[in-house]
Amino acid sequence: MKIQNQLSQSAYKSDGFIKKYQKLIKDTVIPYQYSVLNDMAEGAEKSHVVKNFENAASALKGEGTGDGFYGQVFQDSDAAKWIEAAAYSLADFPDKELERLCDGLIDKIAAAQDTDGYLNTYFTIKDREKRWTNLLEAHELYCAGHMMEAACAYYETTGKDKLLKTMIKNAEHIYKVFITDGHEGFPGHPEVELALLKMYRLTENEHCLELAKHFINKRGTDPDFYKKEARNRSWTVWGNNASDNDYQQSGVPVRNMTDAVGHAVRAVYLFTAMADLSSQTNDKELYDACKRLWESITEKRMYITGGIGSTVHGEAFSVDYDLPGDTAYAETCASVGLIFFASRMLENEINSKYADVMEQAFYNTVLAGIQLDGKGFFYVNPLEVVPGISGVASAYRHTLTQRPGWYACACCPPNAARLISSFGKYAYGENDETAFCHMFASGEVRFKNGIHLVCKTDYPYGFTVRYEVKKGGALAIRIPGWSRNYNLKVNGKDTLPQTQSGYVYLDVSDGDHVTLTLDSEPRFVWASPRVPRLTGKVCLLRGPLVYCFEGVDNDGDVLSLALKRGGEVKALRSDDEVLKDVVKLSVKAVRIKNSGYLYSDTVPDETDATAIAIPYYSWGNRGENQMRVWLEEVK
Amino acid sequence: MKIQNQLSQSAYKSDGFIKKYQKLIKDTVIPYQYSVLNDMAEGAEKSHVVKNFENAASALKGEGTGDGFYGQVFQDSDAAKWIEAAAYSLADFPDKELERLCDGLIDKIAAAQDTDGYLNTYFTIKDREKRWTNLLEAHELYCAGHMMEAACAYYETTGKDKLLKTMIKNAEHIYKVFITDGHEGFPGHPEVELALLKMYRLTENEHCLELAKHFINKRGTDPDFYKKEARNRSWTVWGNNASDNDYQQSGVPVRNMTDAVGHAVRAVYLFTAMADLSSQTNDKELYDACKRLWESITEKRMYITGGIGSTVHGEAFSVDYDLPGDTAYAETCASVGLIFFASRMLENEINSKYADVMEQAFYNTVLAGIQLDGKGFFYVNPLEVVPGISGVASAYRHTLTQRPGWYACACCPPNAARLISSFGKYAYGENDETAFCHMFASGEVRFKNGIHLVCKTDYPYGFTVRYEVKKGGALAIRIPGWSRNYNLKVNGKDTLPQTQSGYVYLDVSDGDHVTLTLDSEPRFVWASPRVPRLTGKVCLLRGPLVYCFEGVDNDGDVLSLALKRGGEVKALRSDDEVLKDVVKLSVKAVRIKNSGYLYSDTVPDETDATAIAIPYYSWGNRGENQMRVWLEEVK
Repeated sequence: MKIQNQLSQSAYKSDGFIKKYQKLIKDTVIPYQYSVLNDMAEGAEKSHVVKNFENAASALKGEGTGDGFYGQVFQDSDAAKWIEAAAYSLADFPDKELERLCDGLIDKIAAAQDTDGYLNTYFTIKDREKRWTNLLEAHELYCAGHMMEAACAYYETTGKDKLLKTMIKNAEHIYKVFITDGHEGFPGHPEVELALLKMYRLTENEHCLELAKHFINKRGTDPDFYKKEARNRSWTVWGNNASDNDYQQSGVPVRNMTDAVGHAVRAVYLFTAMADLSSQTNDKELYDACKRLWESITEKRMYITGGIGSTVHGEAFSVDYDLPGDTAYAETCASVGLIFFASRMLENEINSKYADVMEQAFYNTVLAGIQLDGKGFFYVNPLEVVPGISGVASAYRHTLTQRPGWYACACCPPNAARLISSFGKYAYGENDETAFCHMFASGEVRFKNGIHLVCKTDYPYGFTVRYEVKKGGALAIRIPGWSRNYNLKVNGKDTLPQTQSGYVYLDVSDGDHVTLTLDSEPRFVWASPRVPRLTGKVCLLRGPLVYCFEGVDNDGDVLSLALKRGGEVKALRSDDEVLKDVVKLSVKAVRIKNSGYLYSDTVPDETDATAIAIPYYSWGNRGENQMRVWLEEVK
Repeated sequence: MKIQNQLSQSAYKSDGFIKKYQKLIKDTVIPYQYSVLNDMAEGAEKSHVVKNFENAASALKGEGTGDGFYGQVFQDSDAAKWIEAAAYSLADFPDKELERLCDGLIDKIAAAQDTDGYLNTYFTIKDREKRWTNLLEAHELYCAGHMMEAACAYYETTGKDKLLKTMIKNAEHIYKVFITDGHEGFPGHPEVELALLKMYRLTENEHCLELAKHFINKRGTDPDFYKKEARNRSWTVWGNNASDNDYQQSGVPVRNMTDAVGHAVRAVYLFTAMADLSSQTNDKELYDACKRLWESITEKRMYITGGIGSTVHGEAFSVDYDLPGDTAYAETCASVGLIFFASRMLENEINSKYADVMEQAFYNTVLAGIQLDGKGFFYVNPLEVVPGISGVASAYRHTLTQRPGWYACACCPPNAARLISSFGKYAYGENDETAFCHMFASGEVRFKNGIHLVCKTDYPYGFTVRYEVKKGGALAIRIPGWSRNYNLKVNGKDTLPQTQSGYVYLDVSDGDHVTLTLDSEPRFVWASPRVPRLTGKVCLLRGPLVYCFEGVDNDGDVLSLALKRGGEVKALRSDDEVLKDVVKLSVKAVRIKNSGYLYSDTVPDETDATAIAIPYYSWGNRGENQMRVWLEEVK
């Protein structure tokens, strides 16, 4: 059974937990990011994003390049991701002023488009002759992709088509270059493929579909392509290794891929497009490849937090079972991409395992990427930090203990912002008959098929999910894999439909009340002993939330704590100022004291203790201190 | 009380365990290394060491540079370390042919010395004008230092002074350059300092002492020195970072140093010279710095195996308590250097803690560096390997699971060879009245002060050490810190002298028998909870030997093993062909089985099991398999 996710942004009006986050994005993140793009944010690194578009427009008019191009080669994409996030936000929180800012920025972007449809400020300002000569590094297609996504989102919310027309024109230009004129190659950083498929969904422009297919199918067919490309040019952006086919997923045709390798964000953006194309074209071979890649990620290469890409070297997937918590990379963007991938997998095949991972990545790594006040962002999401080592020692330079305000390479903050703002597109799906509830969140949702629900829940802290059926029909509700038991009532009466691939199906009528009660018990989770770094350790979860232990709740010392196997766990409402909305867990533990020597043959002393855990996403909000997700376990 | 270690090589004739190793060095390592130096070893990488000396000699005679220089900038030092090892070996195993080979090589080295005393094939062949312009990288003083050590050793064994005269002349040249002519700077890689002090001990040449003092005192006084040096030249060897004062220990004057930082081999070679100078000149301030650095290493930055330098980044010390086993660098050479440092610390202050570390580094990391058949060598000594991850994943590329035959950067094999061959210089020390037994080893030792002992022991597998006193006097015997109890008998009668700083002192007469019985019980050791990577883990030792668990003895799977706290440990003579001389330990354990999923909330199953441990130094001799020093612990 095929479904469509990615409901229209206006289909879902959030409430509760998600709305708070969306409001934070609207009130804090979007305005701050706008000021950064315009170099008006105090203390932030120079961005120059808007100025780049102005200078490119000026260059096109033959009026000089102003103060030139500044920033990363993919600097344009910051504007795109901001517009996309703002567009989603506008649907939830109409705001004339924000819309005016968007329109203004879009005017500048459109003015920077060449008459042939080309749009990229780096090349337009610096050297037009070098267009398309460095697909390996130069991110032209990547920036185009993000702008296409922004165009779709802005059109969907506002009905304004200036950016959409710009990007259709841009897509036609790319079509001409790569298909009509036969320019060789495929994107160094996948992104345009999934964006073209989004444009195709929205506009039914066949060139978009054809072009996405072309890039996906071309990939890896000539493993020497990037080497040849590099030989034909005399310049480089960063000196990327053209032979590193793993890094850029260019060594084998996509249908032959087996393991998730290389740069994790590139990988999941590619897999997203592959899954999307397979669902839109019923390409079984492509879908089989996606399933293998999904299994490679989720069964061997993923953190319990839904983080992926465990090594800083190339921001990449490591080998199977190499999942160090303390040197984890686990980029926020990679988990955003994993959610994209999961959502497209669900469109191919309704199975709760995809939504389970979507939720796992969302409530843990993605939310951890954002400071609770919206003013700091993690790019890297370690599962353990120890002040003095993390962020300091050479192997841990990337695992910061506190969220910085902004990055020169600013991919993660707007990526998280656009995902959170469009939560409904991932929470729900539909086909002609059925409405699918993949994730649980308060709010109102109107499906195209006519079904209309109002959901009330304290999820992820409350485990009763109540749907008021405004307009009935067939309903499919996911039962999360983590829920060891559940109860489902329609109008107060128990109903026990069998789950099919992790979803319960039921027909509901106007006015019905459906109440799903999920397992609220905290649970201990162990890793396979094939993961060397997790032997002997245990981790604590409740609902979709992974918990962690911070020094501030545990006498400043998490390292000497071990959890008691089977020890009682109590849920506590937090009385903490910063974490006032979270549920903490208290769990029986022991405090291990030993001789104080580096090594000693004196048996360590254990005294009973109570350990306090907080949701992983909320760590690092109360100053620098130790943090651990996985703790030792004693009996 | 001051003593002198570094007895004459002829003072100690080994037997038993040490002799077997010395014989292996003589029969296998030295001949193989000679063939490598001469590019006659099959399958080894090109070395060109001897050819470099020939080509330099030819260049000096104005007869061209032959096929030029090949290899690392410090290639000459391979010849030096080989001669040093061969010299020690010749004292133990007289061998006319080997002596002839040494003489021949020494002739070639002497012929490569310039008339002014300069000796370095890299600069003599490639560009004489560049001499002394790149102290940061070019290893001229490092190579000189190793050749001085070789010269001392060869003179001591054979009485032949050709190389010694060559190196005195070289030292005088360096003295002229750096002291008379006032050339600025100090060695990028410390080594010449400790070598000059060795030459001073042997020859009493005051210029050697003065020059060593100069380099030690100059170091770190101008933290910008290497930057200035780099600005004054247009070339580089590897592009080393001239600003990385930590890496090259050049940021603070040595007397102000507190933490052991930077490249670990450089650090301990420097500290060795500092400790040596402080003992020879009664420099209390310098000795205080040495004590701080000793504490920094041994109380916060050392593996249980005596390995140091925990990170591959810069082959360097990391921060306090960052001691990962799986990504350990723990270079064999660094532990060799730590033994040098410890031996000089003992000369400043008799305290068993120095000898404890000496023994810990020797029996674990240094011996682990050498394959049991003498044909393979570890540069890097991890405390855990997992095939599929170790040597493969990007953060683990350096942690090989098997010893390669030879390295292009061939520092470790000859370094271990020279140390093992001169074991007596570290095992014993003396002053006018007293003979000091720092380490236990079968063999005969004749002190300069007239005391003469024959030691019989199966150490490190037997814990009774019996001394026959051939010529009596005052004896000081170390009681290892690890020995929870001991018994000392003179002529069969218990004697119980108090230990003073870990040594027992007794007067013995000709014909006496002294029998020391140390603690033979295997013991469990725990690390401080401040070491994040070792929480919940335990390690097994017996005597000076750290034990480890290999897959081949444990059903191929060490990861799922956990040791039972307080479980009985049995010592077993090995019936293994390869490990026939070792004592294995069997210990109560549990085998942990879980669901097979990456993560699962099913409580893992534990079944009783017996785990088999082998001495760490003997790991990796039976094919690629899992290895762990630290295991989980259950109660």
